[in-house]
Amino acid sequence: MLNKEHIAEQFRLLQDDICAQLETADGGGTFKEDIWQRPEGGGGRSRVLEGNTIEKGGVMFSAVHGPLPEVTAKAMNLPPTTFFATGVSIVLHPHSPMAPIIHMNVRYFETGNGRWWFGGGIDLTPHYVVPEDARFFHEQLKSTCDRFHADFYPKFRETADDYFFIRHRHETRGVGGIFFDYLDDQSGLDQEQIFAFTYAVGKTFAPTYARLLENARGRTWGEPQKHWQMLRRGRYVEFNLVWDRGTKFGLETNGRVESILMSMPPMASWEYNRSPEPGSAEAETLGWLRKGVDWILEK
Amino acid sequence: MLNKEHIAEQFRLLQDDICAQLETADGGGTFKEDIWQRPEGGGGRSRVLEGNTIEKGGVMFSAVHGPLPEVTAKAMNLPPTTFFATGVSIVLHPHSPMAPIIHMNVRYFETGNGRWWFGGGIDLTPHYVVPEDARFFHEQLKSTCDRFHADFYPKFRETADDYFFIRHRHETRGVGGIFFDYLDDQSGLDQEQIFAFTYAVGKTFAPTYARLLENARGRTWGEPQKHWQMLRRGRYVEFNLVWDRGTKFGLETNGRVESILMSMPPMASWEYNRSPEPGSAEAETLGWLRKGVDWILEK
Repeated sequence: MLNKEHIAEQFRLLQDDICAQLETADGGGTFKEDIWQRPEGGGGRSRVLEGNTIEKGGVMFSAVHGPLPEVTAKAMNLPPTTFFATGVSIVLHPHSPMAPIIHMNVRYFETGNGRWWFGGGIDLTPHYVVPEDARFFHEQLKSTCDRFHADFYPKFRETADDYFFIRHRHETRGVGGIFFDYLDDQSGLDQEQIFAFTYAVGKTFAPTYARLLENARGRTWGEPQKHWQMLRRGRYVEFNLVWDRGTKFGLETNGRVESILMSMPPMASWEYNRSPEPGSAEAETLGWLRKGVDWILEK
Repeated sequence: MLNKEHIAEQFRLLQDDICAQLETADGGGTFKEDIWQRPEGGGGRSRVLEGNTIEKGGVMFSAVHGPLPEVTAKAMNLPPTTFFATGVSIVLHPHSPMAPIIHMNVRYFETGNGRWWFGGGIDLTPHYVVPEDARFFHEQLKSTCDRFHADFYPKFRETADDYFFIRHRHETRGVGGIFFDYLDDQSGLDQEQIFAFTYAVGKTFAPTYARLLENARGRTWGEPQKHWQMLRRGRYVEFNLVWDRGTKFGLETNGRVESILMSMPPMASWEYNRSPEPGSAEAETLGWLRKGVDWILEK
């Protein structure tokens, strides 16, 4: 069995690696660091960026422990016990409406009575869907997944589609990605292999997003596109505050608010009953925001 | 017993009256109207304003009926039945950061098996707390309440303090107001009197807010105040999407999204770990955002 401090240390190094790559991709911005302690045990290292390409980004590492919150124990049918959780969580909001918002999370959880699992994923939320970008993004994810298990990509892609769904809008948050949770040795892989897979997902993140930013660099935009970006960010807020289980759980159990809400955009808009012109680029994007699109096969 | 169509008709007239007064107070803006039908029964008349003083405002009337949603029936320990609900709901976001956001709601609910009640309230969310404004606002509410029952103002003020509380931020949404729900003949008033009270609350709204806008007219502001307003609007979004029971219920039961989310600000911001300079006007405002302030006695 892997040592939990080892996993946490590797995640901390992953945060370092990702921040370094993102600073290069940003072309001028540098992360500000913020170390915090959790009164009940453990703490974290928050890194936030207001850069040249990335308007607002957070790359958060944490390793916390203590008594397992009662509500979690109940939900999992566990007697009162302790827990240890460590992970890296990222949301990046770019300046350009032609570049996508991205979210990544990798995490490890273990309880005092011997249960453990990994979770995580990466998903992409373009303000304007560019099918070639979505395909590239999914190809990177598939390629990482396929190194570990042939079932992982199709299964975790479907889970992401179901999870990142804005139910009250009947639309997906973006073009999906992969999402997995409670991944343990029942998956056919042992703990070391699952950690290696989770870590590989983490390592896939930075070069993939750097390439997507690069792709967006040549795309021009003006006020109408900026306005649309603000509205799409509003949808991002709606998903995170209304449906995201992690956000809800954190806010309801007195988690560290600033870490939980680092996912919020720097600025967002709402308009009453706005719907885009039929045939416009905005309408085309809405047409893509549905479950079950196979971006790799999509022509 | 009052006729439910009569109550709905009076609420519809209240919407007319409030819109007319708000157009005058706005000084140039006019409401746009939007009639909608609910597939399961009933519908509504939405009025939205993008004005000179009010940046984004909604004054929504609805009268809907149909089978009582299962989740509501369960929560109320009722067998499967039908329901009728009518009301007016308002949120106004002013341009000026020196003027407050305001929210008002009056509603009537009855079930097919003979239960009925009224609910509603008004609460105020200044971006900058001005104690004189808060006192004036609470005096208007108290004066309306006192005409009906001596217990109403203290009781409903406390309910508003408890309800409009952003738990994860440990701060109130604003300077409170009044809030009441499930008000029926157990209150000591009969149905006609409770309707008269609820209606009086509705009538208190427009002249009170017009006066608050008037008070704010002379207050100057610049970029720093506008920026602070965006951050406070972010908190408003957090309250409504995370904690507001009406919003959550509506979104989870497939309510009309555009009516439910008319409360969202035209634009809002989030910054990581922002806290105002000690001694600043912003810090002073945060100091007021706590439960239990008696604004009328406050010096």
